[in-house]
Amino acid sequence: MKNIVIGQSGGPTAAINATLAGVLLKSLEYDEINKIYGMKNGIEGFLSENFVDFSNLIAEGLDINKLITTPAASLGSCRYKLPKDENSEEYKNIFKICEKYNISYFFYIGGNDSMDTIHKLSNLASQMNSDIKFIGIPKTIDNDLPETDHTPGYGSAAKYVATSVLETVYDASVYDRPSVTIIEIMGRHSGWLTAASALAKSKNNQSAPQLIYLPEVAFCKKKFINDIKKLSENTKNIIVAVSEGVRDENNMFLCEDDSCTVDAFGHKQLSGCGKYLENLVKSELGFKARSIELSTLQRSAGHLLSKTDIDESVKIGQKALEYALDGHTGKMVVFKRKSTVPYDIHIVIEDIAKIANIERKLPPNFINEEKNGVTQDFIDYVTPLVSGELYPSYDNGLPVYIYF
Amino acid sequence: MKNIVIGQSGGPTAAINATLAGVLLKSLEYDEINKIYGMKNGIEGFLSENFVDFSNLIAEGLDINKLITTPAASLGSCRYKLPKDENSEEYKNIFKICEKYNISYFFYIGGNDSMDTIHKLSNLASQMNSDIKFIGIPKTIDNDLPETDHTPGYGSAAKYVATSVLETVYDASVYDRPSVTIIEIMGRHSGWLTAASALAKSKNNQSAPQLIYLPEVAFCKKKFINDIKKLSENTKNIIVAVSEGVRDENNMFLCEDDSCTVDAFGHKQLSGCGKYLENLVKSELGFKARSIELSTLQRSAGHLLSKTDIDESVKIGQKALEYALDGHTGKMVVFKRKSTVPYDIHIVIEDIAKIANIERKLPPNFINEEKNGVTQDFIDYVTPLVSGELYPSYDNGLPVYIYF
Repeated sequence: MKNIVIGQSGGPTAAINATLAGVLLKSLEYDEINKIYGMKNGIEGFLSENFVDFSNLIAEGLDINKLITTPAASLGSCRYKLPKDENSEEYKNIFKICEKYNISYFFYIGGNDSMDTIHKLSNLASQMNSDIKFIGIPKTIDNDLPETDHTPGYGSAAKYVATSVLETVYDASVYDRPSVTIIEIMGRHSGWLTAASALAKSKNNQSAPQLIYLPEVAFCKKKFINDIKKLSENTKNIIVAVSEGVRDENNMFLCEDDSCTVDAFGHKQLSGCGKYLENLVKSELGFKARSIELSTLQRSAGHLLSKTDIDESVKIGQKALEYALDGHTGKMVVFKRKSTVPYDIHIVIEDIAKIANIERKLPPNFINEEKNGVTQDFIDYVTPLVSGELYPSYDNGLPVYIYF
Repeated sequence: MKNIVIGQSGGPTAAINATLAGVLLKSLEYDEINKIYGMKNGIEGFLSENFVDFSNLIAEGLDINKLITTPAASLGSCRYKLPKDENSEEYKNIFKICEKYNISYFFYIGGNDSMDTIHKLSNLASQMNSDIKFIGIPKTIDNDLPETDHTPGYGSAAKYVATSVLETVYDASVYDRPSVTIIEIMGRHSGWLTAASALAKSKNNQSAPQLIYLPEVAFCKKKFINDIKKLSENTKNIIVAVSEGVRDENNMFLCEDDSCTVDAFGHKQLSGCGKYLENLVKSELGFKARSIELSTLQRSAGHLLSKTDIDESVKIGQKALEYALDGHTGKMVVFKRKSTVPYDIHIVIEDIAKIANIERKLPPNFINEEKNGVTQDFIDYVTPLVSGELYPSYDNGLPVYIYF
């Protein structure tokens, strides 16, 4: 009889619990699996032996379907990075705890940093001749992991972003007056999520968002003002989608110079780039402008899920368990796209060394020539990822979510 | 044969098109109704004879079901207030245009200002012995119209607010670290929408939002800091819901004094109260703090509708037409609650003079003793209004909305 441990790490997404649910569902099919432990707050909880016993919860009637549509991280998360020195006490502790709890399979759902954890632990296991299998399962709204077509959680966040931008477009155009609306979207280093705002454009033959600025392109304030000015000649309501991570030609965030906002208490503030651009439009062009920050709402919107994303997130969890039981270790499960029309995805594994600590940017063929929008290639890529709807259970008007 | 004109006015909601759809659906039952005109951008479009011909659109197969789940104002809106002087040329023009288009029934869907328009026009019609019937239909996410149990649009906005707060609560608590999250919610003068954030509290036995600040209560910065400090003793993740309209003891908005934010261009800025309170918490207590502004997203979220709200919004439109055809004028259709459990609402009419330009605040029995939260009475009141789910049609992953 073998035991499993599973943890969640990094920023919340709407799909991370679907993947946890996938591992749980699959584990029920194997008689040789005894206990399934969940780490509270990722590796931090593991190190303090703070575990949830899923075997008990399942026996007591845990509703796994409700877990599937629960956003954020039901087990809690962490942003803990293990020490660089592989001789440090913490690594020894991890293996000691594994031994104590008779752990044979160790799953970590997360982004770049979490894959680094799996990489280090699987290397150590190999050096120590340990039999424990370490498997990484991707998860990030940023969609910035290499070797996979996309990451679980991206599709639902992209659907939320595109829908919120679509609704903002119509909200902004109800009055018969010119306006500029700047929507700031998550993505410190890559523009995948901001790019998804372009999906709103194909709806109802409307043309907004007209401008999309991505961190892959150096942001030029002068060009931005010119873009707005030119558009305003024949467009009443201008909608701009901008990534929080855009930087200027000197690789500085937009409000990183000494003209930064000073708050009511006299402290310098790094205002969001949306607010910065709103002020720039008002100041340089005198236009009516407004900015909206989608904020953390975009990563935890369990009420607006992509069915494709959630179904795939369950499946990748199931596959992760299968691969581990087949004896694989030091791997991450990945999506490989066989075809876009019809959409066809396969789940395989890749060596974690090719993934850990590497960020995947939007490729040049997804960015338009003007560098202020995306191409049809990107739209073709992203459309299946946001497609299909899946709704949580509701009780008295509000979603029902499960946390441990 | 008689013609109808209908317009939408004031801020967007997720329910204003459901009410338009209700009027259209009901009109199909009456042989004596010929043309149905829609004003583009409310009374502004009416004055420039900018009309949509719904009779044609319906004949051409307008999908009224899709209109029902379309947010914002499909006809466009305005914030135009008719002149005070009832002898002004504009009033004469309105009646001339009515005559030109053979209008017998004039419907205006809106908030306080729109009801003022209906009030003035029905008074004038009476003075001029005009037979035209003027009927107001309520609509506002602010829920601040008197004489009605609630307003169409409030239930869906309240559901969006409560759901977004719920999802923020879980997002904010994934890390095992203390934090304060301030959520700024719409409502310049009344706290109905901010109060709805309390619905998140009853879910999954969690206790957030722990603090709710409403414009009905003078905001005391010292008490706020004390509230947070006290809570922090035994609460890791503090969630605060605050109305954009809170004012201090001197009736000033929180950031209206000379310590206001200065933007990158040297201009003083009235920052949102959420950002202001975030800075206050950081500065006075040194806690990790974040603020989220739900912004215009909360009023146009067609993807997250209260079925009760939308069903009632259709019905109130239907009833408005019935009352007009029965000969009523100078009235607004209103909801009267017969019972809360089971929820039972009747639609009747009230004299518009009792409604126009009057704002309804949260009554004292809906605010808790500490003045930083709501009572069970409010929860009982609001729960049926957010209950039930209704989803728009989706195409390629995004909602399909209809605009004219």
